[in-house]
Amino acid sequence: MDQNYLLPNAIAKELYFSTAADLPLIDYHNHLSVKDLAEDRQYSDIAEAWLLNDPYKHRAMRICSVDEALITGNAPRKEKFAAWCSVYPRLIGNPLYDWSALEIKKLFGIETPICRENAEKLWDEANEKLQEKAFHARGIYHHFNIRYAAPCATIAEDLTPFSSVVGLAPSLRGDDLLTLSAGFIDSLSAAAGIPITDFDSLKQAVTIRLEEFQKANCRFSDHAIDNGFSYRRDDGKNPDRIASVLAGSTPGPADREHIASAMLRFLADQYAARGWTMQLHIGAQRSTSTRLRRVAGPAGGFAAIGSPVSVLILTEMLDDFEQNDAGLPHIILFTLNPADNAVFAVLSGSFPGVTQGPAWWWCDHLHGMREMLETFSSYSILSTFVGMTTDSRSLLSLLRHDYFRRMLCGWIGEKADAGEFPREPAALKNLVTELCYSNAEKLIH
Amino acid sequence: MDQNYLLPNAIAKELYFSTAADLPLIDYHNHLSVKDLAEDRQYSDIAEAWLLNDPYKHRAMRICSVDEALITGNAPRKEKFAAWCSVYPRLIGNPLYDWSALEIKKLFGIETPICRENAEKLWDEANEKLQEKAFHARGIYHHFNIRYAAPCATIAEDLTPFSSVVGLAPSLRGDDLLTLSAGFIDSLSAAAGIPITDFDSLKQAVTIRLEEFQKANCRFSDHAIDNGFSYRRDDGKNPDRIASVLAGSTPGPADREHIASAMLRFLADQYAARGWTMQLHIGAQRSTSTRLRRVAGPAGGFAAIGSPVSVLILTEMLDDFEQNDAGLPHIILFTLNPADNAVFAVLSGSFPGVTQGPAWWWCDHLHGMREMLETFSSYSILSTFVGMTTDSRSLLSLLRHDYFRRMLCGWIGEKADAGEFPREPAALKNLVTELCYSNAEKLIH
Amino acid sequence: MDQNYLLPNAIAKELYFSTAADLPLIDYHNHLSVKDLAEDRQYSDIAEAWLLNDPYKHRAMRICSVDEALITGNAPRKEKFAAWCSVYPRLIGNPLYDWSALEIKKLFGIETPICRENAEKLWDEANEKLQEKAFHARGIYHHFNIRYAAPCATIAEDLTPFSSVVGLAPSLRGDDLLTLSAGFIDSLSAAAGIPITDFDSLKQAVTIRLEEFQKANCRFSDHAIDNGFSYRRDDGKNPDRIASVLAGSTPGPADREHIASAMLRFLADQYAARGWTMQLHIGAQRSTSTRLRRVAGPAGGFAAIGSPVSVLILTEMLDDFEQNDAGLPHIILFTLNPADNAVFAVLSGSFPGVTQGPAWWWCDHLHGMREMLETFSSYSILSTFVGMTTDSRSLLSLLRHDYFRRMLCGWIGEKADAGEFPREPAALKNLVTELCYSNAEKLIH
Repeated sequence: MDQNYLLPNAIAKELYFSTAADLPLIDYHNHLSVKDLAEDRQYSDIAEAWLLNDPYKHRAMRICSVDEALITGNAPRKEKFAAWCSVYPRLIGNPLYDWSALEIKKLFGIETPICRENAEKLWDEANEKLQEKAFHARGIYHHFNIRYAAPCATIAEDLTPFSSVVGLAPSLRGDDLLTLSAGFIDSLSAAAGIPITDFDSLKQAVTIRLEEFQKANCRFSDHAIDNGFSYRRDDGKNPDRIASVLAGSTPGPADREHIASAMLRFLADQYAARGWTMQLHIGAQRSTSTRLRRVAGPAGGFAAIGSPVSVLILTEMLDDFEQNDAGLPHIILFTLNPADNAVFAVLSGSFPGVTQGPAWWWCDHLHGMREMLETFSSYSILSTFVGMTTDSRSLLSLLRHDYFRRMLCGWIGEKADAGEFPREPAALKNLVTELCYSNAEKLIH
Repeated sequence: MDQNYLLPNAIAKELYFSTAADLPLIDYHNHLSVKDLAEDRQYSDIAEAWLLNDPYKHRAMRICSVDEALITGNAPRKEKFAAWCSVYPRLIGNPLYDWSALEIKKLFGIETPICRENAEKLWDEANEKLQEKAFHARGIYHHFNIRYAAPCATIAEDLTPFSSVVGLAPSLRGDDLLTLSAGFIDSLSAAAGIPITDFDSLKQAVTIRLEEFQKANCRFSDHAIDNGFSYRRDDGKNPDRIASVLAGSTPGPADREHIASAMLRFLADQYAARGWTMQLHIGAQRSTSTRLRRVAGPAGGFAAIGSPVSVLILTEMLDDFEQNDAGLPHIILFTLNPADNAVFAVLSGSFPGVTQGPAWWWCDHLHGMREMLETFSSYSILSTFVGMTTDSRSLLSLLRHDYFRRMLCGWIGEKADAGEFPREPAALKNLVTELCYSNAEKLIH
Repeated sequence: MDQNYLLPNAIAKELYFSTAADLPLIDYHNHLSVKDLAEDRQYSDIAEAWLLNDPYKHRAMRICSVDEALITGNAPRKEKFAAWCSVYPRLIGNPLYDWSALEIKKLFGIETPICRENAEKLWDEANEKLQEKAFHARGIYHHFNIRYAAPCATIAEDLTPFSSVVGLAPSLRGDDLLTLSAGFIDSLSAAAGIPITDFDSLKQAVTIRLEEFQKANCRFSDHAIDNGFSYRRDDGKNPDRIASVLAGSTPGPADREHIASAMLRFLADQYAARGWTMQLHIGAQRSTSTRLRRVAGPAGGFAAIGSPVSVLILTEMLDDFEQNDAGLPHIILFTLNPADNAVFAVLSGSFPGVTQGPAWWWCDHLHGMREMLETFSSYSILSTFVGMTTDSRSLLSLLRHDYFRRMLCGWIGEKADAGEFPREPAALKNLVTELCYSNAEKLIH
């Protein structure tokens, strides 16, 4: 992991050092804690900053047969950290192996290799660093040249904290807008300041809040379309269904699908009218081990990749969105199943304005990123790719933009070397700038 | 793009220059205009010859946010051409980038790079070329060493124009044979010269026309099996269903599937009896954007890739075909979803005589061709691969055979260099000859 | 195929020669003939030893249009062997090309290239070798440094022959336990020595036999979960359904699924209680060509790859297993559809104890093995991979462990050379040892 890490030839090096390395950073979808940033949180120790809330690391430890007590259980933090250090050398090939080394080395400036023997030493070295102002939450954030970062917020959430940090803006997390639980309706009603009694007043409340998000520089929303999702075209009965739910009745499965579909259509129209980008995260199978859900909570790192998407359902949905008053919003489709990469890339030609997002979640590693680039380049048009976002809960993960940029310059450099891409630096530098920065930048105006 | 383009090492170069480059060309499935060839059409300008009827280019322009007026709309041709030139440099990585450069450089002999600044110059240079006899339709056609080229024709079509050009033969496009619209039945009846009143007379009319195709050197047919297709085994009621449709009734979805399946069974038997090859193009999702269908017509470049094929349905269909009187015809299966590559390659071992076709449509690029070769080689037997066909509407696309051959020699050369393929030139040259020419040639006897 | 075959660089060579080459061999799932080993069978000729029972070779011959008489028909053995030799040079790229050359060269020590012209010579040379004690069944077996090899046995089978050969242990083939045919129940009852009249006595009989398998060092079981399998959660009615089947009634499709699911749950619990590993071979479409099934029997090499697995069904099943009294057993999931590789790799994080097996059946070639490693490494954790097993009927196939080890060292060597894996020999040698030997070894205690 020297300075030429992932840069196999001269073209790659030139692209990285002359262009990619210094571009500002746009992280248009993540789960960073705005509270931590607003309060400039100081982490008590490296376990708290790096391990306790990281489901990727928890998952890796489980695969390596670590006892759950040392993962999410009652063991002391220092022991958990030692368990993680013990597992680390076994992770060769997994992205955590690269991410973790980069974070410790490049960010903390610690050269001690991560392993069981060094756990104590690392614990001390890292904890010492965390005392410094530069490693409080904002210090880490400002380590990066951030132009725009968009942590998720739900529609009823107080957006005040976002204004306290430069570059920060909310991204609307829209999942509760599709299920309409009673608790959610109450908080939305309170946030919007109007009663919600039917589909019309629901829409009105949503619109009021969307305006607040707009004022807070929100330009992105995001919806999870999980494995098994079924889209329902409008049958004219949704006002009745929604009124009935608002009145307290529990909808059956088909009604739930109708309501979710109606809300998505309405929201897509709203996003389009505001020039927002709608992100659809497609294909997670979140319900797997009942045991782990109990132990580790609903986002505990045990989600599976769903079966390939139903193209019929997806195209019907996008077609409906396009027929809304405001037309299609910008849409970024994320697939969790890499077998769907070509399917998703090709949809950009079926619905102009729709594009495929970067390798997501379990696909976010060198192999997944290259596969996504290779497919998108061949089945869609590479220069329109919107680039990397971390989707992470950890400030340290912002380093993954550098990982992405190195991989990208390396990948382009190899294509150029093989005569498959042009060798002119100008054309390639322009491409690198688009993919690392300017294509995403266009979406935040 | 010098003479060694896509040829990374000495073996690759030897295979290409000593063997592949000069083999004649068999293009067993395409959509060339026979009328243009019969009349030796002179194109008024490069937009007409190269852009106006090319849904690939239209699609790329849409992905790059070009206004539809400049794609399929009312803008002047020269402006459309300029818009295309402006988009071109953004296509690095997409096959259009390579195809277009090869066509302009290798075919037209024009060295001017394609870009916005050169649009005017290119317009003049190319239009001048198009005046020359060598760039009228037949001139372009004879630029290539064509042994056999098979544009599609529907069963009621007049085949006379085919006889006017050396090497040209019809390939039967069978889609209207599965849906049996009233208009289609009328034209088939007229072409065959007999009334069609029931399944038997329908079969008879088809048989009469198949004989005409046979006389015109037809050896290939082709059917689209789109996303969502469901095959129905024979339940004995198809004569009734077909009689009912012929009498003017509109079949329901299940009846339509029964009728399509019955026609496929009948046709497969006919093809087998004549030694024809049946092509099945599987997995397109043609219905996507209602808006684009209205704007650009049904084949306007907005089709999507369908979900993975139902192996159960596909194997039931092939099993039924095999139990016909004449047994299985040669069948070439094309998949639009590259995630199905291994599935399709393995079917060659389940049904001898069935094979997988080359990377099709959105899969037809360096990445898709290599992936198809790699998979076919590993899951089936490479030396039985039937090789490239363009499936194109454009005479200029015949150049893609050279693109394929370079890629093929490069791919084999790298395997040989790594010690995974033998290094003996004789064995490899034989393989190259089979894949570029002789395996397809066996199908046209 | 010299000594550096598949070893592209210095790291690869060091890993192979210093570590991989000499590790003992664990072949935890195969179909070797225990009878042949117990009796130290002498093969009458090379066709008998190498060709007549090999559905891979039969399939390849069919793809190359060899007449079935020369494959499974009445032609004399020597002619069949000559037909196979004729086809061989056409197999470049298919794993049979490499496997066969390695077997003839490395195992038999015969340098004569395999081709039509050499068929007679090879016939004589190989048959002469087969006279030698070293090429009787046990001689071939002891050619390899086998620590543990586990041929399949059905639950009612006599296990005595296993004890006659060092390293041999049964692996329980559980398919008949899911269908409960009358004949099977009779033989199970006889083997267990108790009458079987209801679910309880069925369980008891199974348990008695599992104890016998345990005594014979069995540590693995295996179930086929074919394309279209549907899992049914417990509805409390399975004792009635099973009693009804035992009483002679024929269950409908839904009842069959309930019974199979109930048996799998029961068996998973038993395997977990004993520390066994449960293998699930998922996704074969065994019913394809009716004609070939008649000609070549049910395992005649014509199976297809099924559609991608239903993740919903698979996760429900594993979740149920996990809630059994004994919890999840070790489970190795094999997928026949390489498009499911990422899906399967990720499940290791959803259900600790579950892992993905090596590239299986039609996927078992350089491309499939590398794709599996690349995916498993990125989506799961490489160092936990359980490594190669042959799944073969042929003793000669044990050579494929060497093929795997060379590929593995080559693959790791290239990663290390590119700076994506560490370059420290110690870390990599440890990894190689785990993947070639010690991870599998942990499962046989």
